[in-house]
Amino acid sequence: MFEELLADRTSIMGASAIREILKVVGKPGMVSLAGGIPSPDSFPMERIKELTDRVFTKYASSAFQYDLSEGFTPLREAMSAYLAEKGIIAGPDEILIQSGSQGVLDSLGKVLISKGDKIAVEAPTYLGAIQAFKPYEPEFVRMEMDDQGLVPESLEDTLKNHRIKFIYTVPTFQNPTGRSITLERRKRIAEIIIKYGALLVEDDPYSNLRYTGEPVPAIKTMAPDNVIYITTLSKVLAPGLRIGVVAAPKVITNWLVIVKQGVDLHTSTFSQAIAAEYISGGYIEQQLPKIIELYRPKHKAMLAALEKYFPKGFTFSKPEGGMFIWAEGPEGLNLIDAYWKAIEKNVAYVPGKYFYTEDSEGFSTMRLNFTMSEVPVIEQAVERLAGVLKSL
Amino acid sequence: MFEELLADRTSIMGASAIREILKVVGKPGMVSLAGGIPSPDSFPMERIKELTDRVFTKYASSAFQYDLSEGFTPLREAMSAYLAEKGIIAGPDEILIQSGSQGVLDSLGKVLISKGDKIAVEAPTYLGAIQAFKPYEPEFVRMEMDDQGLVPESLEDTLKNHRIKFIYTVPTFQNPTGRSITLERRKRIAEIIIKYGALLVEDDPYSNLRYTGEPVPAIKTMAPDNVIYITTLSKVLAPGLRIGVVAAPKVITNWLVIVKQGVDLHTSTFSQAIAAEYISGGYIEQQLPKIIELYRPKHKAMLAALEKYFPKGFTFSKPEGGMFIWAEGPEGLNLIDAYWKAIEKNVAYVPGKYFYTEDSEGFSTMRLNFTMSEVPVIEQAVERLAGVLKSL
Repeated sequence: MFEELLADRTSIMGASAIREILKVVGKPGMVSLAGGIPSPDSFPMERIKELTDRVFTKYASSAFQYDLSEGFTPLREAMSAYLAEKGIIAGPDEILIQSGSQGVLDSLGKVLISKGDKIAVEAPTYLGAIQAFKPYEPEFVRMEMDDQGLVPESLEDTLKNHRIKFIYTVPTFQNPTGRSITLERRKRIAEIIIKYGALLVEDDPYSNLRYTGEPVPAIKTMAPDNVIYITTLSKVLAPGLRIGVVAAPKVITNWLVIVKQGVDLHTSTFSQAIAAEYISGGYIEQQLPKIIELYRPKHKAMLAALEKYFPKGFTFSKPEGGMFIWAEGPEGLNLIDAYWKAIEKNVAYVPGKYFYTEDSEGFSTMRLNFTMSEVPVIEQAVERLAGVLKSL
Repeated sequence: MFEELLADRTSIMGASAIREILKVVGKPGMVSLAGGIPSPDSFPMERIKELTDRVFTKYASSAFQYDLSEGFTPLREAMSAYLAEKGIIAGPDEILIQSGSQGVLDSLGKVLISKGDKIAVEAPTYLGAIQAFKPYEPEFVRMEMDDQGLVPESLEDTLKNHRIKFIYTVPTFQNPTGRSITLERRKRIAEIIIKYGALLVEDDPYSNLRYTGEPVPAIKTMAPDNVIYITTLSKVLAPGLRIGVVAAPKVITNWLVIVKQGVDLHTSTFSQAIAAEYISGGYIEQQLPKIIELYRPKHKAMLAALEKYFPKGFTFSKPEGGMFIWAEGPEGLNLIDAYWKAIEKNVAYVPGKYFYTEDSEGFSTMRLNFTMSEVPVIEQAVERLAGVLKSL
């Protein structure tokens, strides 16, 4: 009953294949390298408690009342100052707070995508972006990437040969590959989008999580008028608060606000008030080194274990930060089939195929997460997984 | 720049007319009968503080981690028991938590509405529902209502003459009119939707706010398989937490979950944990009488002031609860024009026109809110407003 009432778009949203296969991840004894979530040890729990208490005295009932669709004003002011330190110049009125960066992606889809519009994405790209955009029925155009991130020539070819609504990229420690676009390429990408008058969505959840190497500025700093910059507090405070942030050209933010009124009116005022205190109090700068110290050994351990155990013929990315490593086996390998064998050995990963918009791509790839497990567990899990891969 | 990139749907979302006219409401000295928000005095602030502290000890970091798109399990369990007391039978797995009831409406639009689909709505209807559905480009079919709420014959005619995707109604203390559908009519409506195999969305934010008269059961209790029931904690706890609740047929909830993954992954875990403690601890039953005691004199004062001051030729609704009273002037009157004269006298209301889906309707109507002002202020404001109306 009522199946026949579903919208046309609903039938194309069957992105539940991954949801189905990941259902087994919660089984007792399973070691999951499949997750994409921060370690709860990275949450500044005592600080959150202290800031929560402060919110009650400082904002009282206004932290629990309806608020602006644009976002809680003290948080937008704090984010404006915080982003300025990263070279991202956006006044509080150019910044919107949404319900996680997922909330930004959904709203952008709603504001920008008409059925059949072309969206340029990296191959592979962030699954959550595909899930956010797909209901608006775009056509995805794939762009090449390699170990240095998105290939500028591929971007330029794409803009030359297609009418692209916007480009979507995760330039730093990309989900799923962990790859970063080099400084040189960022400059080239900025030139290209300015030349073509193109709009680029820069999704940046991970750049704060750098374990080695030098920070690279956001593309937004190089082409401010052409870039919609998205970030989130999910990896540097706590994801359960659902705080996403967007700094965008005015014509876009104006519409994002109108859309948000229809989507959820506004993001939790209480969550936003806690976040405002966290950013404006400078506590993020105190917490970040702790988060990095927590993840650095895990990152190192996984890279070392992959080097030590993974079979010949496999390559893997060597990110300087973030939460993921990307491994690629020899062509012809099917790592969705292998997934079930790994599950038998109590190790889970995400088959890389789900991060591609083209049906034929990515069968021999996998995404591995290192933030959720302890070092010895990572080592054992990689060894076990390598055993499964060798047996194929 | 980039104007040309906006989606087709964006151009039809120009529902910002009301946003524009309401911008003056915040002016100093203005008495606003325009709001649709609960009094902050209705928030159980000490209780919220106590429950927040409890969440830290009881759930610790899990209240700040990513969580299920379905909603925080303890909250769904608590809501299941809570709704059962109202005769709404839905297991925790048939209940979803979303980001306010606005979040439910948006997701329903996404799951159900293809461009051009027909949605049956009351005339007038809740503006937020129009804003949620409009981006999915439906056609609205208006149904008649009167002082006893939605007219069943109009519903049946609509189902006979149109292919309706779903019916949307706010049966109790409707926003904007304050009207409620009588028990008799609810039974008739239940029969009709069962007879036609129709899907009805019952939006119920206000039924707890009853100041006089006897409770009337939800339509969901009379046609459980045909009704998507929506409620919210915004009026009985605090809107800033953004907690919306939906109990729906399984085929609908399955898709709502998939859609929500793309929209915002899930609603704030922290907000949901606080709400879980509030409902499961029975605190809502302790708070409700206080909220009702707070609003009852305001409700009574506004009805009395309207009776006393409003010019002849005006009628107004006499709701037994909720947050709004609906006034209607003689035909030919334009209460959008009158709005600006009222603003000059420092009184704001919402012109009723914005609650109609037909362009030609509602010019002589207005919505008045009584929850946000104190009794003497309500009396003065209604008197002043009556003066403006008499001068037209």
